[in-house]
Amino acid sequence: MAAEPVWSVDPRTGKPREQVAVEATAEEIDRAVRAAHAARGALADRTARAALLRTAADLLDEAGDHVIEAADAETALGPVRLTGELARTTAQLRFFADIVDEAAFLDVTISLPDATTTPPTPDLRRMKIPLGVVAVYSAGNFPLAFSVPGGDTASALAAGCPVVIKAHPDHPATSELCASLLRRAAAKAGLPEDVVSLVHGFDAGVRLIRHPLIAAAGFTGSVRGGRALHDAAAARPVPIPFHGELGSLNPVVITGAAAEERADELGAGLAASMTLGEGQFCTKPGFVLAPRGEAGDRVVAALTAAVSETEPGVMLDHRMRGAFLDGVRERAALPEVTAPVTPGAGGEHTVSAGVLTVDAGLLPGGGHGLLLEECFGPVTVVARYTSRDQVSAILGMLPGNLTATLHIAGEDPAAASLLTELTPLAGRILVNGWPTGVAVAAAQHHGGPYPAATSTSTSVGGTAIERWLRPVTYQSTPQHLLPPELRDDNPLGVPRS
Amino acid sequence: MAAEPVWSVDPRTGKPREQVAVEATAEEIDRAVRAAHAARGALADRTARAALLRTAADLLDEAGDHVIEAADAETALGPVRLTGELARTTAQLRFFADIVDEAAFLDVTISLPDATTTPPTPDLRRMKIPLGVVAVYSAGNFPLAFSVPGGDTASALAAGCPVVIKAHPDHPATSELCASLLRRAAAKAGLPEDVVSLVHGFDAGVRLIRHPLIAAAGFTGSVRGGRALHDAAAARPVPIPFHGELGSLNPVVITGAAAEERADELGAGLAASMTLGEGQFCTKPGFVLAPRGEAGDRVVAALTAAVSETEPGVMLDHRMRGAFLDGVRERAALPEVTAPVTPGAGGEHTVSAGVLTVDAGLLPGGGHGLLLEECFGPVTVVARYTSRDQVSAILGMLPGNLTATLHIAGEDPAAASLLTELTPLAGRILVNGWPTGVAVAAAQHHGGPYPAATSTSTSVGGTAIERWLRPVTYQSTPQHLLPPELRDDNPLGVPRS
Repeated sequence: MAAEPVWSVDPRTGKPREQVAVEATAEEIDRAVRAAHAARGALADRTARAALLRTAADLLDEAGDHVIEAADAETALGPVRLTGELARTTAQLRFFADIVDEAAFLDVTISLPDATTTPPTPDLRRMKIPLGVVAVYSAGNFPLAFSVPGGDTASALAAGCPVVIKAHPDHPATSELCASLLRRAAAKAGLPEDVVSLVHGFDAGVRLIRHPLIAAAGFTGSVRGGRALHDAAAARPVPIPFHGELGSLNPVVITGAAAEERADELGAGLAASMTLGEGQFCTKPGFVLAPRGEAGDRVVAALTAAVSETEPGVMLDHRMRGAFLDGVRERAALPEVTAPVTPGAGGEHTVSAGVLTVDAGLLPGGGHGLLLEECFGPVTVVARYTSRDQVSAILGMLPGNLTATLHIAGEDPAAASLLTELTPLAGRILVNGWPTGVAVAAAQHHGGPYPAATSTSTSVGGTAIERWLRPVTYQSTPQHLLPPELRDDNPLGVPRS
Repeated sequence: MAAEPVWSVDPRTGKPREQVAVEATAEEIDRAVRAAHAARGALADRTARAALLRTAADLLDEAGDHVIEAADAETALGPVRLTGELARTTAQLRFFADIVDEAAFLDVTISLPDATTTPPTPDLRRMKIPLGVVAVYSAGNFPLAFSVPGGDTASALAAGCPVVIKAHPDHPATSELCASLLRRAAAKAGLPEDVVSLVHGFDAGVRLIRHPLIAAAGFTGSVRGGRALHDAAAARPVPIPFHGELGSLNPVVITGAAAEERADELGAGLAASMTLGEGQFCTKPGFVLAPRGEAGDRVVAALTAAVSETEPGVMLDHRMRGAFLDGVRERAALPEVTAPVTPGAGGEHTVSAGVLTVDAGLLPGGGHGLLLEECFGPVTVVARYTSRDQVSAILGMLPGNLTATLHIAGEDPAAASLLTELTPLAGRILVNGWPTGVAVAAAQHHGGPYPAATSTSTSVGGTAIERWLRPVTYQSTPQHLLPPELRDDNPLGVPRS
């Protein structure tokens, strides 16, 4: 069977631009994983790991114009957004280099012998070690920050795990370019290039998760694709951790007081957040509970006005565009759903942002369940509520989310109880903000109850490194045989508890 | 359909003692889980949680004679062992109460606003919160420390998660007694009794893992049972974390130098460890690589002598006894396997400990794979090796383990490279010790690569609490709405980073 070609496609026209690669065969997958496995010993050197991450950031910055051009040609995200995304990506690589240097992630813990406990405690010294080769499934909507040089790759390399990356089919040329820079960075850091490799193809992705030497996987994408890979990871003879970020509705609750105070600001802010990047953010606010009445009407009016003014935009690919058009059509066709701005086709290759509204009282009936599912693209659903009980009833129906947002005013009496109800729904809770924009910080959490994530881990921020580690305890081991991190003299000066 | 009776059985005779309970129906499971879910809010009070754990320890200690008598009647483990296990269990409950008080497990992390990052960092404050109701599947071999009042229950309650415990069928009366003490402790601590409940029955266990309000599960038991529950947890509409400890061979490597130095001590130590508790420990050393030659012969001779002197013992139940007899018979029948002490039936209800030996060179051939699988009960397999390469080849064939043990002497030249090869195989690495006996300590790790564990977590030691928590980040949230742990003034004085 001839190798299937992998094409780079221009989403602005739907036309193929160039053949970039071919899909990986089973043998090629096996070779990439084995080469990565063989290279893992070299990654044990934390100094080299940190150098790899910083060099990768430098090479990406140096090739910035080229990277941005490649990504824009395949994603239509535009140079402004992609310039910001590249800066985020290289900052993230350097952030994880700092984490490697600090070495707190090793979680070194020492329990000295204690004959008074039941049973007695021998000399126990624990640290975290890398799991092995990590499979990274790139996202389509962030061709840099959640793709080949993105957070999963950066955190896995920081943990000491080689990566085999399954390229997202929407930006194969960008993926090839970034992978070549990462491999070059490895060589410059004195590491085998095979600590990073790239494969293309749907079947390749399925084979990858089943490979016996794959020790864990990271995924950012759809519920359907992520769930299939999650299930395959769990069904292996040796199951492996699968850290997937699958889908999120990102509910927003606007109290009556907030609507009274700043209806125009809320409408404009919501419009900006839901249309950012053509609504292709995993944190897009897709469902809004806004009060009935005059203040709520003003929120919707401001939202409507701002969304009406947005230009039609190009989505990441024509399949996503088709799914968006189908999704908004199905939702708009539900009983008593209205569209103050109709979402749908713009031109031949573009989409227009829109807003759907519905009476919140209809939702518990069961016939409007689709409104509580994520619709990828520039649309949000505003459910108008008349009572606090209605809000609670609907919050109780929501699936897990990456974010949940509360808009309040001053000493809003409803605030505390609403926050209590929102907390179980999401991994990040915002007050008076908008969920798009995920800072790379120590206290970040980008995850949440399923389907937001398939584990309790985060895919953004410092603790993302924890996904690729496991603890090991050495008992009664002579000093000279211990890893240096665990020796009494702590020659590497790692933090301990 | 009539409710299935649950009998307490005397393993010393195989005869039923008394009917203790009936198997839980689907409705009863649903009621227990819903009651636990409704009680979770009360457990948010950490002071009450710590009081519950300490009161439970006190009540267990007060009822000690009664508890030990009940456990001995059902498990035949004997009052000496059970007295130690009860002390371990109550110490573990108090250990987790201290962990609750220290509050470090909340992992409070604050990132202050920083406009210089890309993207800018808003005010982010993260802590860990309880996952929800935890299903605990009790082990048979520790009727206290890994059963109703054991580590899974203690760590889940410490995390703030109510538990619904599936009783192990080998000790239903002990389970009922302990559950009643835990529920009494809850009431004394001002908490709803339903933070702890107990159910019996195989079908009940399967229903429990599928209940939509179960948020996570802990399991200690067989590969077969654990894998089935793992798969059910992964296949749920909303998959949940399944922390299972399933099986472990616990390999031991004895170097030539160690055998030369202390053959008698090694043989006697191994005999004591492998026969402890009738070989029914998950950390029983089940596979030993010992050198060919005179020194190795002396190790085997000392092992043989010590094992020959052990009295026949009673296993936990007659099904396990049958599985042990089948297991040793199949292993002994493999080509060129010899039995210096034949393991098998003792009297009508007992088993005799034994030792099997084999030439290590035969193992890579593939026909002796059964020797590399755990056989629950008092038997160990000694594989005699002639070269370092043979050791490496066999270590490369082993599945994941809870422990791996190395016996060396002085500045043994083989030590460093052997430790490097043992580390990927297990969660705890011992030098010159024996793996049975698992201290409850901060630096403990009781887990390891599959099938030792189904996750990277531990089921013993302070970090066992992490299994039942998830992080949540509050973004730009006004001080008065933040959980007190995250406020600037830190009114509860919790540790932070």
